[in-house]
Amino acid sequence: MAKNFVSREENYSQWYNDLVIKADLAEYSAVRGSMVIKPYGYAIWEMMQAALDKKFKETGHVNAYFPLFIPKSFFSKEAKHVEGFAKECAVVTHYRLKNDENGKGIVVDPDAKLEEELIVRPTSETIIWDTYRKWVQSWRDLPILINQWANVVRWEMRTRLFLRTAEFLWQEGHTAHATKQEAEVEAKKMLGVYTDFAKNFMAMPVIQGVKTENERFAGAIETYCIEALMQDGKALQAGTSHFLGQNFAKAFDVKFLSKENKLEYVWATSWGVSTRLMGALIMTHSDDSGLVLPPKLAPFQVVIIPIYRKEEERLAVIAKGNQIKEELEKLGIRVKHDDRDTQKPGYKFAEWEFKGVPLRIAIGPRDLKNNTVELARRDTLSKSFTPMDGLNDTVVNLLDEIQNNLYNKAIDFRSEHTTEVNNWQEFKEVLENKGGFILAHWDGSSETEDKIKEETKATIRSIPLDYDESEEGKCVYSGKPSKGRVVFAKAY
Amino acid sequence: MAKNFVSREENYSQWYNDLVIKADLAEYSAVRGSMVIKPYGYAIWEMMQAALDKKFKETGHVNAYFPLFIPKSFFSKEAKHVEGFAKECAVVTHYRLKNDENGKGIVVDPDAKLEEELIVRPTSETIIWDTYRKWVQSWRDLPILINQWANVVRWEMRTRLFLRTAEFLWQEGHTAHATKQEAEVEAKKMLGVYTDFAKNFMAMPVIQGVKTENERFAGAIETYCIEALMQDGKALQAGTSHFLGQNFAKAFDVKFLSKENKLEYVWATSWGVSTRLMGALIMTHSDDSGLVLPPKLAPFQVVIIPIYRKEEERLAVIAKGNQIKEELEKLGIRVKHDDRDTQKPGYKFAEWEFKGVPLRIAIGPRDLKNNTVELARRDTLSKSFTPMDGLNDTVVNLLDEIQNNLYNKAIDFRSEHTTEVNNWQEFKEVLENKGGFILAHWDGSSETEDKIKEETKATIRSIPLDYDESEEGKCVYSGKPSKGRVVFAKAY
Repeated sequence: MAKNFVSREENYSQWYNDLVIKADLAEYSAVRGSMVIKPYGYAIWEMMQAALDKKFKETGHVNAYFPLFIPKSFFSKEAKHVEGFAKECAVVTHYRLKNDENGKGIVVDPDAKLEEELIVRPTSETIIWDTYRKWVQSWRDLPILINQWANVVRWEMRTRLFLRTAEFLWQEGHTAHATKQEAEVEAKKMLGVYTDFAKNFMAMPVIQGVKTENERFAGAIETYCIEALMQDGKALQAGTSHFLGQNFAKAFDVKFLSKENKLEYVWATSWGVSTRLMGALIMTHSDDSGLVLPPKLAPFQVVIIPIYRKEEERLAVIAKGNQIKEELEKLGIRVKHDDRDTQKPGYKFAEWEFKGVPLRIAIGPRDLKNNTVELARRDTLSKSFTPMDGLNDTVVNLLDEIQNNLYNKAIDFRSEHTTEVNNWQEFKEVLENKGGFILAHWDGSSETEDKIKEETKATIRSIPLDYDESEEGKCVYSGKPSKGRVVFAKAY
Repeated sequence: MAKNFVSREENYSQWYNDLVIKADLAEYSAVRGSMVIKPYGYAIWEMMQAALDKKFKETGHVNAYFPLFIPKSFFSKEAKHVEGFAKECAVVTHYRLKNDENGKGIVVDPDAKLEEELIVRPTSETIIWDTYRKWVQSWRDLPILINQWANVVRWEMRTRLFLRTAEFLWQEGHTAHATKQEAEVEAKKMLGVYTDFAKNFMAMPVIQGVKTENERFAGAIETYCIEALMQDGKALQAGTSHFLGQNFAKAFDVKFLSKENKLEYVWATSWGVSTRLMGALIMTHSDDSGLVLPPKLAPFQVVIIPIYRKEEERLAVIAKGNQIKEELEKLGIRVKHDDRDTQKPGYKFAEWEFKGVPLRIAIGPRDLKNNTVELARRDTLSKSFTPMDGLNDTVVNLLDEIQNNLYNKAIDFRSEHTTEVNNWQEFKEVLENKGGFILAHWDGSSETEDKIKEETKATIRSIPLDYDESEEGKCVYSGKPSKGRVVFAKAY
């Protein structure tokens, strides 16, 4: 399985790409920039969806579905939004094909041209706020707390599986509120939900922060974000939550009669995470032996592999495997019993190790005699013979331990790769040689931010929420006064 | 709520449309033919999805995701498929917009024309079989049992909410097999899954059958279907499962090395149900008071409505309501406690009745004294005072009873509206005056089928799976010999 698999150090980018493909997570399709999410990859995404959806519902949100197509004119209504989103997108211009008159297959029917082109949604603020106008009259109609699971399309020129694809899957929350304060609370609350999910399910530590104007969502007043650190020292934006102010309400004329009987514009938020999280998950934990999955998001938390030569051995170890599976499943553990007779144990070991199953249980005839199993951890690649008695508890505890261990390893990695720098020379050196998050003073101007990006490709990932205004200093680039350190990194 | 709500008899079509809108299920969007599925409607769809997804997984299927866009040329590869699907569809021709040089908003950038147009998937056989080619080499790679939850687009000219929309949500299963027999078994198995779901969740009886050549899926060898009967006497195709033979394998060159070491084409099935089921659900059970939902698919199975005048009464009945809610939820029952202080009980009664909540519990100060509640059934619109003691059991039993009652009512309706006819005069009379399913002899020719459709708009819904070849007869239209009765109806 792990044959021809390069190490991270050798070629990180190829390591990632090969891992995605060889672990059966996804592959490129016949359509440029679009991917096929394969069953094993999709199963992980389903686990993510289930956990997030539960959290959204617990925080009072409901799901709905809005159209895939958005009339072109909608994008022009919010001045900044159109700049950010209406450019690289898929445009539907016709609604019919016909047989070619010269018998050369099918061609677009020129008579079936749409009066107004339709854009395949790159994000749904416009169509949703056009709809909310009809739903909102009074303060009694607020808040609206809606989420949508959907596919979106952004015509990216350079694509990478999960990280940047023309079509991707995501959820987008779109909420409407009577007051500014309520919308601000919502935007921050959802950032908290994402942070919690990243930490407790993905075992991935993130920095909570606010985007600078340059990096802000097109149409937002404030973009909150969580930023994670990948093993190559690059940052990955893992989720965003936008306080949109009244921008979209004004663009789509969404007003309500307040308790005080005044006609006011509605306040908005939007927030989303996407299949990009798959990329983040992979790059946070995986190693040179393949995928490593945190137990909470592993489609199979335990794989059982029978070892045998003779038929009677086969029957005995498989019976035992079935029994263990059944007992573990009663505890809510997801178990794969790989009892295929078409593959050898060594092949199965390699396959499931590469696919990141947290725990492997191997059972052979000797184990039956000794009343033991061989238990192998994917995170540490350690093995041990373990008594069959008490195996359930052992497994439950180990899964917890693995989940925690992965988080702690990621925290440690991040700590080691987070550096405070105090001058421009140091900034460039750290960025070049060590990478990671760089905490540095910045003068607050877009101009400086642009220049730093131009010279180094590093961007301000965020002004951290725990931004410390007491620590004043001087901008590493311009030397002008700074009120605190912001987070720089090269990013995906 | 039910103000300005026409009866089914007055205007069935308007009744349906008003119901969908006034019950907050869906509405038309700014994009022609596309709908917004509102949270209450989407919650029902989510219940359907969850039940179906569970059944798919129990029968060995896994989910995956394939691209939204399909290269135009793919459609030409399967000769019949292109005729059926490549005509009325959304065509992406460009991938960029730009600012109009005359300052008039944004326009399509003519420089960003795609070399090959992309079709927004109307169904995914082509892109999926193009992918399966890469996945299948040996019999060991088979079967592939994949399902996809997705949106699809068919450019319909006349649209109706849920029943026929340009974009709709669905699931599409696409399986690949080593033998013809295995694929045939799969196609029938999934028809069984749909039948079971229709019966046990939707409380909707269906006829299982096979489509005639005229009505067959474009590219299929055999199309199995389930047909339900709506209250206006029209049939609705509720789900289809296709045995595709080797048609798509041949079109996309998907071969495998068999156990016998021979290179063979792969056998295929595909099967799907869509948000159209929402229309079927609505039209099977609802009445002149609004939506009626079977408990198994009701987002709220029970609504609790507090009745009070004074503040102390409010506190007491709401406390009791919370207690009842908590206890019912422990039993897995979905409960809404409508404790809004902004609406009167009468308004709430009307709203939840219209939204089809199976059971309503009203609690007032007198109920607290008498240790009772008022329990109202949505299916029968009957009310009774019920002791608080044993309420949990009462509710559990009533929900079962309502589920069964709805199914039995639907079965009775269908029996009353299924008629055996034996000559052409009778056929036309029954179709005109009574509607429903007509069981009649047919000579087996597409020509006769076409003529009957032309003259009466009735189509052959299916050759029922319990087609009785022993009952020979004469075609009602042509008088030619027939081997058994088929099912005719006007259909959605």
